[in-house]
Amino acid sequence: MKALSIIKIGGNIIDSPENLQTFLKDFASIEGLKILVHGGGKLATEIGSRLGIAPNYVQGRRITDEATIELVTMVYGGLINKKIIAALQALSCDAIGLTGADGNTISATRRPVDKIDFGFVGDVTRKGVNSNFIAQLLNAGLTPVFAPLTHDGQGQMLNTNADTIAQELAAALSKAFQVRLIYCFEKAGVLRNPSDETSVIPQIDKSNFEKLLAEGIISEGMIPKLSNAFTALDAGVSAITIGHAKDLKHILLGKKGTKIL
Amino acid sequence: MKALSIIKIGGNIIDSPENLQTFLKDFASIEGLKILVHGGGKLATEIGSRLGIAPNYVQGRRITDEATIELVTMVYGGLINKKIIAALQALSCDAIGLTGADGNTISATRRPVDKIDFGFVGDVTRKGVNSNFIAQLLNAGLTPVFAPLTHDGQGQMLNTNADTIAQELAAALSKAFQVRLIYCFEKAGVLRNPSDETSVIPQIDKSNFEKLLAEGIISEGMIPKLSNAFTALDAGVSAITIGHAKDLKHILLGKKGTKIL
Repeated sequence: MKALSIIKIGGNIIDSPENLQTFLKDFASIEGLKILVHGGGKLATEIGSRLGIAPNYVQGRRITDEATIELVTMVYGGLINKKIIAALQALSCDAIGLTGADGNTISATRRPVDKIDFGFVGDVTRKGVNSNFIAQLLNAGLTPVFAPLTHDGQGQMLNTNADTIAQELAAALSKAFQVRLIYCFEKAGVLRNPSDETSVIPQIDKSNFEKLLAEGIISEGMIPKLSNAFTALDAGVSAITIGHAKDLKHILLGKKGTKIL
Repeated sequence: MKALSIIKIGGNIIDSPENLQTFLKDFASIEGLKILVHGGGKLATEIGSRLGIAPNYVQGRRITDEATIELVTMVYGGLINKKIIAALQALSCDAIGLTGADGNTISATRRPVDKIDFGFVGDVTRKGVNSNFIAQLLNAGLTPVFAPLTHDGQGQMLNTNADTIAQELAAALSKAFQVRLIYCFEKAGVLRNPSDETSVIPQIDKSNFEKLLAEGIISEGMIPKLSNAFTALDAGVSAITIGHAKDLKHILLGKKGTKIL
């Protein structure tokens, strides 16, 4: 099986043009097949506030109402995605921007209303990933770049978490490729001490994950990231690392970040 | 050679959700290979004014400054393009949204500064069309949907006229397909009397084009459309029709619109 690298970058990298350009240079230089999944960043909130679209919270959870799905479709699927595509093309990386609606690459189910109606939010499963078409693009030499957007197959775009998209792509494509998944964010990895960037935990497996949880070392935001990572490993993903976007080259060499085993 | 229909819709169709949906139903029902090219519409101007981005005119010509290229990348490449893609997917048409940057499908040259600096406007030629990749998508069963945006290959998105994109795609793809090109707009065709929708001129060839020009029957806005059409015919496009978006089905049957011969 051919090797495939799936890299997820968070919104904070996108918010800085210099950091984004440095990251994209490193990304473009990865040899072999690769996919990029990008998050949203502060731009949607900033443009939304200029448009008079205020973030809508219910019980502390952000709701994707109609104005918000239009906003994020514009900003994530248009502005951010095409900036990345044009920059990668200039770096001789033949990138193609996709939302889940494009080529029906990722269809999702609108999150059911329980206590909260999250609005136009899509939950994606492995079955919703159109592995055949994505594999065709990869084998034709293209580099797919996913915005954090899917569709319901009935004409509605949906807001979808970029970490989840990366994880489900990795799991679905593991049937056809040897997939390594790298989550890039603003920290050097999973830290033993959140205020000390040198306290990276080099490896986490299921047994020390339980221990780190019990000790309270793994913080709230990191728990779903790690749980997702273990799910992806169970689904056949060959390697997962979490690290800083600026360390991508070192992470690829196995020299930085936290490996999930 | 396989038949390929390339349809261009203007912004005024996009501005009405009902008209757009009706048009997309007719478009989705076209059998065989097809491509859609869409214009911009008033939405960019409306969202721009809410964002405080005023249209910038120099000597009566609109300039695409930095704020404007970001605006149209968002609105054309994100909001409008993805709405169309999601709607077509719901109609069982496996559409994929593209700007010229995606898969390097259309690269353009930034318009040279002569008397006016038009800003981030791209002029596209047949050579800039990546026919191979577009043909791969078509042959894989996909329907490409182009936003009126290209790139310069050096990281910059460019604003590009949708009529020109449709024409250059048609010309470039004529080497591999039997292409018919249909321009859909808000009139029933080229009218002998602009205020009479029943005065459609059924056929225009080069000789009666000169005559209609001399008589002043062909109005200013129609002259570049028709000149482009003749250029496309010279480049091997097999048939070109101009007509009303609501008449698409009849135009396809050769029963409505103005044929350019």
